[in-house]
Amino acid sequence: MPLIRLEIFEGRPEEMKKEFIKRVSEAAADVLKIPIEHVQCILTEVPRRHWARGGVPYSEKKLEGEGYKFTR
Amino acid sequence: MPLIRLEIFEGRPEEMKKEFIKRVSEAAADVLKIPIEHVQCILTEVPRRHWARGGVPYSEKKLEGEGYKFTR
Amino acid sequence: MPLIRLEIFEGRPEEMKKEFIKRVSEAAADVLKIPIEHVQCILTEVPRRHWARGGVPYSEKKLEGEGYKFTR
Amino acid sequence: MPLIRLEIFEGRPEEMKKEFIKRVSEAAADVLKIPIEHVQCILTEVPRRHWARGGVPYSEKKLEGEGYKFTR
Amino acid sequence: MPLIRLEIFEGRPEEMKKEFIKRVSEAAADVLKIPIEHVQCILTEVPRRHWARGGVPYSEKKLEGEGYKFTR
Amino acid sequence: MPLIRLEIFEGRPEEMKKEFIKRVSEAAADVLKIPIEHVQCILTEVPRRHWARGGVPYSEKKLEGEGYKFTR
Repeated sequence: MPLIRLEIFEGRPEEMKKEFIKRVSEAAADVLKIPIEHVQCILTEVPRRHWARGGVPYSEKKLEGEGYKFTR
Repeated sequence: MPLIRLEIFEGRPEEMKKEFIKRVSEAAADVLKIPIEHVQCILTEVPRRHWARGGVPYSEKKLEGEGYKFTR
Repeated sequence: MPLIRLEIFEGRPEEMKKEFIKRVSEAAADVLKIPIEHVQCILTEVPRRHWARGGVPYSEKKLEGEGYKFTR
Repeated sequence: MPLIRLEIFEGRPEEMKKEFIKRVSEAAADVLKIPIEHVQCILTEVPRRHWARGGVPYSEKKLEGEGYKFTR
Repeated sequence: MPLIRLEIFEGRPEEMKKEFIKRVSEAAADVLKIPIEHVQCILTEVPRRHWARGGVPYSEKKLEGEGYKFTR
Repeated sequence: MPLIRLEIFEGRPEEMKKEFIKRVSEAAADVLKIPIEHVQCILTEVPRRHWARGGVPYSEKKLEGEGYKFTR
């Protein structure tokens, strides 16, 4: 009965979030050898100004190597 | 000093959420034999599109047997 | 599909923890008007030395008004 | 900078847990189009007696359709 | 690789939240003797009506001794 | 009524964990201008094999620049 919690920056397209949930749920079912119906998943969006590394919010950082452009 | 975290679909009426918090806090105090003032409770609302079972968000499911009609 | 997370000091008897889970799950089903089978509950035990108020772990505090005596 | 939190019943083999972490991290990197080095993952094991559905701990339930046999 | 999660009432000024994140991250680096770049921090704002003590939401309480006046 | 949750690798000395809790609680009281008695803090220890970056558990990584030597 795994519970998967995903925290990502807010602003991803709905389709991408939905695909993310689907893919990790499938991975859980596959690896743990359980029916996918047993897998629960909750996604939370975090504003970049509320997520920090090194004491500095990501809203004030440049993430290099990030292939996806945020829509907001 | 129990901490209770409640995660529910967003859209419940304020009165219902307040009653939910009150009831579980009372249950905690009663069962654990502690003053209710020691009980902390945080409620979080999760959009149905961010909560999934079996890889499929609840926004795309029909929950049978659910007696309460959401207001949004 | 509420998810309830309970955090308590470690050391409560198994029967008390089980009753706690049962009671809050029943409260959820009753207040939210959903089948109790939709209610998930996860309990976590926290050592008193890892839980603090005012910067001081509860392992170094006396909790007044606490009717229950810990077995360890 | 996604953060993935996995909660599963305790008792899975180390190799299975490691594979689980690897697979969901790969899914995150792939779907979100980010370097896998940006993906953080924390796994927590929950005893079956502390995880309940319908107010009843899984330690007292039989999970049908579960292909994997627990080693303890 | 500490992960720090901060939950506060919503409504604090952005500067205060930023300073809060900075200060606890610095404390982590200092005490744990690690580079501050290893410290992750996520802040979550909780509406006062969703945070309760003693079964009563803080939106219906008066917090004595609280020096800061909320802007909303 | 801030709630601070600290997750660190397991194996730090008790004194270091206690100091960590104390320091972040003081920072919270100072920055948020609230009595320190309002600050709650919960620390959780995560085994290195259950915490991963890039899909690889830290138990299989070398953390450069880490000044503190783990005792286990």
